[in-house]
Amino acid sequence: MSESIRDIEVSLGPRSYRIHSGPGLLRDESWLCERIPHRRILLVSDENVAPLYLDRLQAALGERELHSQVIPAGEAEKTLARLGEIHDHCAQIGLPRDGVILALGGGVISDLAGFAAATWHRGVDFIPLPTTLLAQVDAAVGGKTAINHPSGKNLIGAFHQPRAVIADSDTLTSLPEREYRAGLAEVIKHAVIADPHLLHWLEARVRQIKERDPGTLADTVIACCRIKAKIVSEDETEQGRRAILNFGHTFGHAIETAGKHGEWLHGEAVAAGMALALELSRRLELIDEDYRNRIIGLMKALELPVEAPRMPPEQWLDLMGRDKKVSAGRIRFIVVDGPGSAVVRDAVDPATLHEVLQWSPSR
Amino acid sequence: MSESIRDIEVSLGPRSYRIHSGPGLLRDESWLCERIPHRRILLVSDENVAPLYLDRLQAALGERELHSQVIPAGEAEKTLARLGEIHDHCAQIGLPRDGVILALGGGVISDLAGFAAATWHRGVDFIPLPTTLLAQVDAAVGGKTAINHPSGKNLIGAFHQPRAVIADSDTLTSLPEREYRAGLAEVIKHAVIADPHLLHWLEARVRQIKERDPGTLADTVIACCRIKAKIVSEDETEQGRRAILNFGHTFGHAIETAGKHGEWLHGEAVAAGMALALELSRRLELIDEDYRNRIIGLMKALELPVEAPRMPPEQWLDLMGRDKKVSAGRIRFIVVDGPGSAVVRDAVDPATLHEVLQWSPSR
Repeated sequence: MSESIRDIEVSLGPRSYRIHSGPGLLRDESWLCERIPHRRILLVSDENVAPLYLDRLQAALGERELHSQVIPAGEAEKTLARLGEIHDHCAQIGLPRDGVILALGGGVISDLAGFAAATWHRGVDFIPLPTTLLAQVDAAVGGKTAINHPSGKNLIGAFHQPRAVIADSDTLTSLPEREYRAGLAEVIKHAVIADPHLLHWLEARVRQIKERDPGTLADTVIACCRIKAKIVSEDETEQGRRAILNFGHTFGHAIETAGKHGEWLHGEAVAAGMALALELSRRLELIDEDYRNRIIGLMKALELPVEAPRMPPEQWLDLMGRDKKVSAGRIRFIVVDGPGSAVVRDAVDPATLHEVLQWSPSR
Repeated sequence: MSESIRDIEVSLGPRSYRIHSGPGLLRDESWLCERIPHRRILLVSDENVAPLYLDRLQAALGERELHSQVIPAGEAEKTLARLGEIHDHCAQIGLPRDGVILALGGGVISDLAGFAAATWHRGVDFIPLPTTLLAQVDAAVGGKTAINHPSGKNLIGAFHQPRAVIADSDTLTSLPEREYRAGLAEVIKHAVIADPHLLHWLEARVRQIKERDPGTLADTVIACCRIKAKIVSEDETEQGRRAILNFGHTFGHAIETAGKHGEWLHGEAVAAGMALALELSRRLELIDEDYRNRIIGLMKALELPVEAPRMPPEQWLDLMGRDKKVSAGRIRFIVVDGPGSAVVRDAVDPATLHEVLQWSPSR
């Protein structure tokens, strides 16, 4: 089996780690025990994911002292109260400094369990086992952990690099269709901001991607992780260049927040946000209409929503202003200035912005 | 005034910062505004300290948007609930990524506000304004922030380096006698583990120290910060050498925890803990009886308690085992092996340890 495993290293000096991707990783006892050498383990998962993979993991890690904490699924669980419950569990099992917290699930579990690992004993080892496409290409790479505050998403958190990331491709085949598609938004984002070759490659493989061909999936995950790892290596704590990973997110977060009851999945909101960011890039004359349409076309081919909800500009500005990326009162936008290239703009003319906010790709 | 300010740099690459010490720093408007250039500020303090210095700070920083949060004093406030309240306040005033949290008070305020700064927006600037000797020589240096868990002290936290430390010597003259003396335990600790010259210097200045001579105080604070800064620079996240800063603390934490109602101040417990750690060092034949007695003599001259409470060995082991410094089930001790030199020992013979736990400096 081992020849089908791909891996890359994220180079961060003493905090460097490897991302492993491939089928069957969560079943392979000897391989898994090598990557998780810890004696005492707290595994955090949710009620959707735990029934699918917890048993096989417990079997594979049978020699270790494995404790598990299963919480309800969903973004609403990323609270200070849940964090406190994980800390309570850590205390109860006496998780030591050289223990590890595993996160079995999507981005919510990874963010929450990662933040618990960042803060228990001022930092214990953290190994995400991402089970969604979004988490495999995005949430598990970069060391961002967080919980939500009633006033906004991810407002409380820490940078805490994982010890390793174990992305089993098999977990993607059982993903609900809508969630899988939403993950593709982040895949496209990586290609758009940093890799024109990946963009071509994706355009040529729309069918395989929609069919979730395992080989194509593993290649895609590793390609995206390589891009993100490179950007993160250059800028570990998000002072500069790393901001380009937020392409589509300033608009996207506003869309997500406006849809209060979770109508929009994160990836869906990012897709519609990227459409607006592309239009902004075009109006700033950084790209032409053809390039904008090409990316929107790829998103449509992969059945991603590209149409943001109608909102008055004041509401947009209010929702975007709540975003963490606001610096000194100015909203920061990520725009693209060519295939595989993105830059930060924090002084966008309000009139231009208003026009963008009223633009629709279908008109 | 500026010629009386001393400062040193803590070298941590991009996270380097300066510690400033001297009289009148919290009154000096132009000097203060240069060190705290932030537009929006959240100041956290407690009910004992705020009445003494908050007004002068508000006057000195009058041009800025300064919000303050005053909480009850005491270790019992280092909870997840209080942390949540500080986050709520950050949200309410919209503290941005480029905002700052100031901690005006002792170690409790510094630990709690520092942890809030470490986690709000995944890290905003943090500037402690320590007002106790303990906080000036210890809590404000090293980047450790934390809250308590019902099962133990400082179990939840993060490493977050301050942007600067502003230690106004004037604040030490109004400190209650007992709290001042407790701070001297950390001063002695620094000398014992790392600086034989400071040890001589302290022995020659017992009178000036007891009289709180301002010049002696400022020199002492800077000498200790220099020692701690050097050790921390070599080992930012406490993987190795930094552990020697815990000299006296393994025993000391047990003493603190056993005295449930706060009978022992941290520094007092550390003093009695150092006496035991010195006896352990002697039994391991790393130092002789004369050196042990010399240090205990200095502590007595400064009126520090050197006598640990009587407890059965099992209770000691239980209380020490709860400490974070436990690795793979073995308790780690810091011992001294000569004037100004300390090492880590994690395999102490149980019989030797039992003898040490029953030893008393007065017999």
